[in-house]
Amino acid sequence: MSKMLTPFETAAWLKERDNFLLITHRRPDGDTLGCAGALAQGLREYGKTVYCLANPEATERYERFVEDYKAPDDFIHEYVVAIDTATTDLFPKNAEEYKESISLCIDHHGSNTLYADFVCLDANRASCGEIIFEILMAISGSISSATAERLYVALSTDTGCFSFGNTTGNTLYVASMLVEAGAPNKDLNKLLFRTKTRSRIAIEGMLTSGIEYSFDGKVAIASITGEMLEATGADEDDMDDIAALPGSIEGVCVGITIRELTSPHDCKISVRTRAPYDAQAICAHFGGGGHKLAAGSTIEKTIEEIKEELHKVLEEIM
Amino acid sequence: MSKMLTPFETAAWLKERDNFLLITHRRPDGDTLGCAGALAQGLREYGKTVYCLANPEATERYERFVEDYKAPDDFIHEYVVAIDTATTDLFPKNAEEYKESISLCIDHHGSNTLYADFVCLDANRASCGEIIFEILMAISGSISSATAERLYVALSTDTGCFSFGNTTGNTLYVASMLVEAGAPNKDLNKLLFRTKTRSRIAIEGMLTSGIEYSFDGKVAIASITGEMLEATGADEDDMDDIAALPGSIEGVCVGITIRELTSPHDCKISVRTRAPYDAQAICAHFGGGGHKLAAGSTIEKTIEEIKEELHKVLEEIM
Repeated sequence: MSKMLTPFETAAWLKERDNFLLITHRRPDGDTLGCAGALAQGLREYGKTVYCLANPEATERYERFVEDYKAPDDFIHEYVVAIDTATTDLFPKNAEEYKESISLCIDHHGSNTLYADFVCLDANRASCGEIIFEILMAISGSISSATAERLYVALSTDTGCFSFGNTTGNTLYVASMLVEAGAPNKDLNKLLFRTKTRSRIAIEGMLTSGIEYSFDGKVAIASITGEMLEATGADEDDMDDIAALPGSIEGVCVGITIRELTSPHDCKISVRTRAPYDAQAICAHFGGGGHKLAAGSTIEKTIEEIKEELHKVLEEIM
Repeated sequence: MSKMLTPFETAAWLKERDNFLLITHRRPDGDTLGCAGALAQGLREYGKTVYCLANPEATERYERFVEDYKAPDDFIHEYVVAIDTATTDLFPKNAEEYKESISLCIDHHGSNTLYADFVCLDANRASCGEIIFEILMAISGSISSATAERLYVALSTDTGCFSFGNTTGNTLYVASMLVEAGAPNKDLNKLLFRTKTRSRIAIEGMLTSGIEYSFDGKVAIASITGEMLEATGADEDDMDDIAALPGSIEGVCVGITIRELTSPHDCKISVRTRAPYDAQAICAHFGGGGHKLAAGSTIEKTIEEIKEELHKVLEEIM
């Protein structure tokens, strides 16, 4: 049974101990990596020995916020601390050996399975970064610019730069403190939210120009052909979250993106819906799966063939 | 010669007087209308009589934040207050008669021409809303949810939901206070930042498809013709922040949008830059103004003529 700690108690817990190994979750995002980097930085400034276990799935975008704290092979830790990680199933492969021996977990997911000896959990926080901020402030009463930068990454990425519905007054308040402490919000926002590659801009332009609406504007279908990818030079990174585009249009309840993969007969559909329309049900027809509001499938048919079939499926649903 | 007032002195100035008519600028955005609505609401709560002069160019998106304060024909004002308006050239047609008799101007544009008797100006604020917040807090020490909602519109629209380079610790701090005071940030963000109309999607598609790059990809120029607007059915609301698009492309330091207004010989340029490139200097060449990293100008020339002239200006700068 886990013992629950407030951020203030967690600060005391950390102050009394030393030699921490921090663990982040699989498919690491800005919150888990930003928080691990910030906690490592803040605790080191307080005189502690702390390292982050290398996350094999960390992408270039976030890697730089943790790379200074990478645990060397000969580091002997006393306490393993899991950050922003709801269950041990989300541990990366190289962290699986610690599943049964997590001393502390700091998290904001209501679904946390309380697998750690001590847990600092606040499901009302938009980002784990807000909790780490409270802990570090309780430890030393201030935040360095290096720590602030990492926490800003955590807060801003988990809230879509403060635009998602999870953003609270506290999120904005902590963000203001981080900026005052020297977090380079201007550069970070530009990097994380306001920069698109020329290829991405070009493919978006082609995609949006060709959107087809049906069912009184409730359905929007966008197609991405191999030719479009070739003409724009767009790569996999440029495709990030592009499937969300048709679904973000006013009045659209079912947004569908069809994309050619290796050949015109090898396509992938991505479906985004607004309740009550069920993305999973649409994709199930093609043998795919996912969630209620976001699902997908790969289909060995051409874009035109898929459109025809989609029309039949949609006629039943709409 | 104008007398400069701090926000605190402006609060005292307003407390000592009554019967205000508030004026907003042409092509009104969320900052000018949100601020006028907030100041009207806040002053009324303090017992003052205050109305906003109807802005004939106000769009549906922002109209609802000022409609409760629309000045009736028989309202006899004592003081005219201009909000977020750098020069009297930016007055809407129906405000031109007040050009010589502005008692107070509250603004955050460094280019303010000091046309009012009293001026409360802070060019370090990302939005005029931050100044109005200070003034209202100095007047009554609190903010109602109706006032907070309007100020949130002002802050968030002028900073691209806190993602633009102008966003400071103060912006985020004031935003946190507004959310705590009841500003419905979730609903407002959805309305203002997370939904695009079909017309907006279509105009974005056309615009991005036609972007012209020059100076080794450091300059990106996008054009919006009257024909494009007609073909897509895009209205003023659909144009919101579209000028930021060319500047958001990787490697671009100077992003320029040229847009036809009433005729092919009546255009508006919007310039967004990254330091050290000076948007204001570029627009000054055309008789316009604004801020270091974001400026604009209306020009009585065609898109092609403006492009040629821009090229000359840019050759000196780049």
